[in-house]
Amino acid sequence: MNMEELLERALSNVTESRVKEAMRYSLMAGGKRIRPNLLFEVLKGYGIDPMKGYEFACALEMIHTYSLIHDDLPAMDNDDLRRGRPTNHKQFDEATAILAGDGLLTEAFHLAASAAVDPAIVVKGIRILSEMAGPDGMVYGQILDMNEDPASTYVDIRKVHKYKTGCLLSAPLMIGAAIAEQPDDIIEAWHEVGEKLGLAFQIQDDILDITKTAEDLGKSNSDARNEKVTVVNLLGEEASRAEVAALYSDCRSQIAKFRGFDSASLIKMVDAIEARMK
Amino acid sequence: MNMEELLERALSNVTESRVKEAMRYSLMAGGKRIRPNLLFEVLKGYGIDPMKGYEFACALEMIHTYSLIHDDLPAMDNDDLRRGRPTNHKQFDEATAILAGDGLLTEAFHLAASAAVDPAIVVKGIRILSEMAGPDGMVYGQILDMNEDPASTYVDIRKVHKYKTGCLLSAPLMIGAAIAEQPDDIIEAWHEVGEKLGLAFQIQDDILDITKTAEDLGKSNSDARNEKVTVVNLLGEEASRAEVAALYSDCRSQIAKFRGFDSASLIKMVDAIEARMK
Repeated sequence: MNMEELLERALSNVTESRVKEAMRYSLMAGGKRIRPNLLFEVLKGYGIDPMKGYEFACALEMIHTYSLIHDDLPAMDNDDLRRGRPTNHKQFDEATAILAGDGLLTEAFHLAASAAVDPAIVVKGIRILSEMAGPDGMVYGQILDMNEDPASTYVDIRKVHKYKTGCLLSAPLMIGAAIAEQPDDIIEAWHEVGEKLGLAFQIQDDILDITKTAEDLGKSNSDARNEKVTVVNLLGEEASRAEVAALYSDCRSQIAKFRGFDSASLIKMVDAIEARMK
Repeated sequence: MNMEELLERALSNVTESRVKEAMRYSLMAGGKRIRPNLLFEVLKGYGIDPMKGYEFACALEMIHTYSLIHDDLPAMDNDDLRRGRPTNHKQFDEATAILAGDGLLTEAFHLAASAAVDPAIVVKGIRILSEMAGPDGMVYGQILDMNEDPASTYVDIRKVHKYKTGCLLSAPLMIGAAIAEQPDDIIEAWHEVGEKLGLAFQIQDDILDITKTAEDLGKSNSDARNEKVTVVNLLGEEASRAEVAALYSDCRSQIAKFRGFDSASLIKMVDAIEARMK
């Protein structure tokens, strides 16, 4: 089964309703499915059947999707387009979009709590997932991003990206390591890999935003419209590209060092993520 | 420690930020703390230290609070007052209120996953909590409520209340029974008690809405303003009061029948909830 089929299966037991329709609209809108695939690659690298991570993989994608739906709302980024289609509140309405986000976030934990692994591991996975997604993680990053000082420095923006993007890329790596029963210091090392990946990913996004049009990206360019400070504004395009290359290279060497971990396939995935800018 | 202190403690580890401030503003705004107290009463009735339910009790109150914050938003009920104070989006702003709700919902699962009980019970509790709060529970009730047919019957409205209010009153009863290691059919019987309690509670609210002013209630009366169909509209005040009395009486006799459960204290709590209308 591919990821699209797994997500369809994850939604299949939810009661039919307008809110489910709205959840499904955004969840099944495509996208790179990076977070689920990161989890599958970590499990494979540790020699574990990736399907052991099925519920957490779907939960991660649901949380990512909820964050996009709420981010696009008029009170937040006020975006009309996402992946070439109307955003959730444009396709449905604002109230339904708020509830669809709430529904995906809650259902994510319902799925995670149904994971077919040892209960102690499920609990650990849920602790990681909620910490990385909540007011110490992604939600913290979102409030930092919203209240950003126009005089931000690269250090400030790094912090925003660390939480807003990095935490939800760390989560699949950490949950994979938790399912593989790795000790806490190793889980923490995976956390750092995710942060770097998130930062690299976000700077790449900023570079893409200045070099591509909205039509190419399939979304409206709210960052430019909202006159956000980006790393590219601060460091310039050339230095930003160099920083991205350095961060990805750092990720790869960290990944290669994990003991008992066959890193080839995950490193190939990092290469593919990096390649999207070229 | 009373519930206010427990909630303060539950928030104390969250990173300081504007979103935490907004989460705290609504979480610590008082309220009857019915859901945590229902959980504590069920544990006491089964002879278990109520503090075993501390994390789930706080999680329930966080989920209840997030639902109020999102419900009050301009795109939803558009209320300016809640418990005699400005609603979250009036005190902060819409974007912060959306994030505060998201933060409380996510943090609820983080707390629940830190509960100091057996991991298998934690997982079961999280499964109950997420099912009762999500798109098969409270969120389903909210979408039904939003898209309600003006020609609704009592049966339709019962369904809305069952999900919108009942599910989150069932959750503490069911989680209490799960911590007390009761079998699934008993947990399901507690589910039904919560549904009846929710229906009674909601009809009481409707009666209060027509007999008290906004100032008495400490909230603006959006239901009347939005011309919602209520049970009181449909059945009339007298029949509604009789229905409430019958539902509470039904709850009490169901509670009294649970084996190995000392029901006196929980029944007293049901009496106190019923008494608020008189």
